[in-house]
Amino acid sequence: MSNLSQRQQKLLSMIEQKLAQLLPEENELYQPLLDSMGYSLLDGGKRIRPLLTLEFCALCGGEPENALPFGCALEMIHTYSLIHDDLPCMDDDDMRRGRPSNHKAYGEATALLAGDALQALAFAVMLSESSVEKVGAERAVQAAHCLATAAGASGMVGGQVIDLSSEGKKVSVGVLRQMDALKTGALISAACQMGCILGGGTKAQLKAAQRFASNIGLAFQIVDDILDVTSTTEELGKQVGSDRANEKSTYVSELGLEQAKVLSAQLTREAIAALEIFPSGEVKDDVVALAQYLAVRKK
Amino acid sequence: MSNLSQRQQKLLSMIEQKLAQLLPEENELYQPLLDSMGYSLLDGGKRIRPLLTLEFCALCGGEPENALPFGCALEMIHTYSLIHDDLPCMDDDDMRRGRPSNHKAYGEATALLAGDALQALAFAVMLSESSVEKVGAERAVQAAHCLATAAGASGMVGGQVIDLSSEGKKVSVGVLRQMDALKTGALISAACQMGCILGGGTKAQLKAAQRFASNIGLAFQIVDDILDVTSTTEELGKQVGSDRANEKSTYVSELGLEQAKVLSAQLTREAIAALEIFPSGEVKDDVVALAQYLAVRKK
Repeated sequence: MSNLSQRQQKLLSMIEQKLAQLLPEENELYQPLLDSMGYSLLDGGKRIRPLLTLEFCALCGGEPENALPFGCALEMIHTYSLIHDDLPCMDDDDMRRGRPSNHKAYGEATALLAGDALQALAFAVMLSESSVEKVGAERAVQAAHCLATAAGASGMVGGQVIDLSSEGKKVSVGVLRQMDALKTGALISAACQMGCILGGGTKAQLKAAQRFASNIGLAFQIVDDILDVTSTTEELGKQVGSDRANEKSTYVSELGLEQAKVLSAQLTREAIAALEIFPSGEVKDDVVALAQYLAVRKK
Repeated sequence: MSNLSQRQQKLLSMIEQKLAQLLPEENELYQPLLDSMGYSLLDGGKRIRPLLTLEFCALCGGEPENALPFGCALEMIHTYSLIHDDLPCMDDDDMRRGRPSNHKAYGEATALLAGDALQALAFAVMLSESSVEKVGAERAVQAAHCLATAAGASGMVGGQVIDLSSEGKKVSVGVLRQMDALKTGALISAACQMGCILGGGTKAQLKAAQRFASNIGLAFQIVDDILDVTSTTEELGKQVGSDRANEKSTYVSELGLEQAKVLSAQLTREAIAALEIFPSGEVKDDVVALAQYLAVRKK
């Protein structure tokens, strides 16, 4: 993400450093668990979700540092979902970000438990004394509740169930949108909403953040589908062409490549338009640039 | 648990009713997930952990009703851990409480995701507006943080990893105690501590609750080991003799049946002694009776 601003690069470094700090201390009694958690959490992910949390906190006038534990918690939830998603009983993927998936490296039982422990850690981090004293108990409760809802049955996990049940079936763009609104959209929306809550945003700002998130979230998924067709396995760090091999309905299979590109560009414009309510300045310029980068990313 | 007081029976009914209410509303998009969550959450468990949360809230002078969402959250964490524990990559158990285990009824992928969603739901419930308005944001944060820590790597999940790594090995009573202190002890301790936090208990009361919990938690595990040898599959609702079949070290295999019984009785007495700090009365009498019941239970 070298085309992001220096300011955002600095936020990304803060996130990376904090994630490493937040992992539990070594303990010989269950060290493989901790290794497995660290293996997936510190694997060079793009950190888009925590970055959005910090940026929306800043857009609402808050200190991005105060949102750091919450952004990191969100990344832990995202990471655990990828570990569980790769398991043999789910997508059965051997590779993730150019390396063996967690269960290939640590075994299925440890991978399952590492995911479980990462979800618990996410909440422990948000509700810790040091995290709460910076934002106050009221905002900490609201933000953590937002993430808990987004991560659960009516959010991310529900979306995964729809995904599993539509495997091998031809599904409409409408069902794809419903599925993605939950599977990937819920966490991206939580990222932006948590930032607003922690930064003390108004109701109107929270609503604008949701509009930004739902557009950018869907665009993000469409770009994923496009890259599965147009990128190479080396560039992407995971097997390309897997959607077609699995006879999976995607925006590309349903709309065609060109229309999918048009739709993702349109959604990105709508996301940027939703930012109007936030004050102009460096932060907003950076968020606009981030949205544009996500639409043209190569991995 | 028909030998418990009418007061405690009433608390148990409240817990049972609240658990059913807290499950997400029907949704045809991911109904199998919701069915799978309800199948395990509403399966006639003993509800000892939420009962302890309500009782310690009452012992500290709080309204047990205010602790209800927190006790139910704890039961959700306990339930998700059982679902994941039964999966083929873990203990591979086909039966749980006299019925097919969750993955036997709903398939592995749905069972995995139902566990994940139950963990998220636990936090959503504790941090919901209706739960927080009764106890205040400060106490809600402290109690939810207590549960998040107990459920994670340095608590329940860590204990499961120790359990897996000691499978087929002969381990000492010392290692068994360390493992159980995490695997089952952490949640039982969280149950009592959360009650104290929510009821506004003093530091000394919190400490006494921890002492009660660590003794009762270990006694509970020893009684489990005893029942695996002395009970029948029908009575217990799960396969007996499985510890010996799996060549698992237990308190019975390491200490012998008689010594194990002596130890569990001693621990129960120590647990009851820890209650001294709490005011005498109906609640305390009921907690003492509960501790005694747990030591002589038949399932």
